[in-house]
Amino acid sequence: MTYNELSSQIFLKQSYLCVGLDTDPLKLPRHLLTESDPVFAFNRAIIDATADFAVAYKPNIAFYEAQGPRGWESLQRTLDYIPSECFTIADAKRGDIGNTSSLYARTFFDPSAAGLDFDSVTVAPYMGHDSVTPFLQYDGKWVILLALTSNVGSADFQRQPVGEQELFEIVIEKAQTWASHEQLMFVVGATQADVVSRIREIAPDHFLLVPGVGAQGGSLAEVSRRGLTKAGGLLVNASRSILYASSADDFADRARAEAQALQVEMAQYLAEL
Amino acid sequence: MTYNELSSQIFLKQSYLCVGLDTDPLKLPRHLLTESDPVFAFNRAIIDATADFAVAYKPNIAFYEAQGPRGWESLQRTLDYIPSECFTIADAKRGDIGNTSSLYARTFFDPSAAGLDFDSVTVAPYMGHDSVTPFLQYDGKWVILLALTSNVGSADFQRQPVGEQELFEIVIEKAQTWASHEQLMFVVGATQADVVSRIREIAPDHFLLVPGVGAQGGSLAEVSRRGLTKAGGLLVNASRSILYASSADDFADRARAEAQALQVEMAQYLAEL
Repeated sequence: MTYNELSSQIFLKQSYLCVGLDTDPLKLPRHLLTESDPVFAFNRAIIDATADFAVAYKPNIAFYEAQGPRGWESLQRTLDYIPSECFTIADAKRGDIGNTSSLYARTFFDPSAAGLDFDSVTVAPYMGHDSVTPFLQYDGKWVILLALTSNVGSADFQRQPVGEQELFEIVIEKAQTWASHEQLMFVVGATQADVVSRIREIAPDHFLLVPGVGAQGGSLAEVSRRGLTKAGGLLVNASRSILYASSADDFADRARAEAQALQVEMAQYLAEL
Repeated sequence: MTYNELSSQIFLKQSYLCVGLDTDPLKLPRHLLTESDPVFAFNRAIIDATADFAVAYKPNIAFYEAQGPRGWESLQRTLDYIPSECFTIADAKRGDIGNTSSLYARTFFDPSAAGLDFDSVTVAPYMGHDSVTPFLQYDGKWVILLALTSNVGSADFQRQPVGEQELFEIVIEKAQTWASHEQLMFVVGATQADVVSRIREIAPDHFLLVPGVGAQGGSLAEVSRRGLTKAGGLLVNASRSILYASSADDFADRARAEAQALQVEMAQYLAEL
């Protein structure tokens, strides 16, 4: 999916909501456990319930990987089920030396490899340019690079002072020499909303993938007012607050209501642009 | 496996060789392609050929993941086949917020999850302490944290100046507040041998996992003389130079010869202690 196509979807749906599919087999509603693939059955119901309000879906690969081979089958079924107008993110936090990153890129981008055809993958920057560039060899595919994450530990290294800057700013600046805003996004946690204005100064056009709204306590209003651009420029993720809004038979209806509430709020911020 | 057990194996086998199982299905000898699981058949032959000379095996998870669900089956068969006295490393470079890192830890450490029971996993430090500590909740399991990697891109962020130090030194110092040398190792590329003496000053007892000998051009002699400790303290990895020493029927014999040559050289450096 291109930058312009993603931007168009945002204004069409009046939403920059990404639904995180952090699907925990231990939290599934009981009545799904008799399905042949309960994880996929849950995801299908969540996608059906939220697709009117979401422009992106982000399976968190750890949740599938922890199920062994059948987890990867659930992941493939889920990805195949996501409507084609939605942007798809493999939240995998991968990154290794060049020949190994090439294989991770194949895993998520080349359907002839592992059966997966994501639009993007999250990548950790620590190993530098040659750990990231193999993911950029695929036309129309995106790298979403960790910059300033939503967790407490982000202070340990990402906010270390490097000269006049902090490390995450060096990451954002240097990564822009590897790819344009048409193939590169940055992860910026909603819990770091106070820094979004600074990030917009050094990355005015890049999409930011923003986790941390909801269960992690970030403010949608703050991050939106500081991060939105004329092209949209944000994908704000919610996972647990949507997936587990209810653990009973009404989980899909409750997920839909949660997603809609976020979309309605997002439409307000888009109207302020 | 404990620190002392690993140390004992090193002096028993007179080797600190780790064989990297970066098994590429496209590079398998032709006669294996008729096997029901050619990747496992190759790994089994490599393990049989090298187990006399290796104290550790390190499957590179990308190579298995890129095969989809059957890749994870090959990985499980391979792990189950590695002799129990050998230390096993899931080279996965994982790391995410706490609840997600917990699932990655389950994947590689809890056999009831994905069927895998590795001794250790490689972890990327960028997201900080709460992305690493979930891996430390398993008794007898290890985190091998990226510090200074073997690739050119290691200069981009790992060697950024932070005060009087470089970032990788901050990583090594801070990580020591999370776990002792009995549960924590560091990745230090053999191509960075000139820095190993500095690392030994701040991490005198920690094992270092050293990739980059062989195809990547690092010197075994240099890294050994600067990095070995009274407990061994090094695991030096070789992957491609062993796995693909020959692409013909004699691949296992040639792999054995390569592994033995490294072991003989390592025995000399151990004798110098």
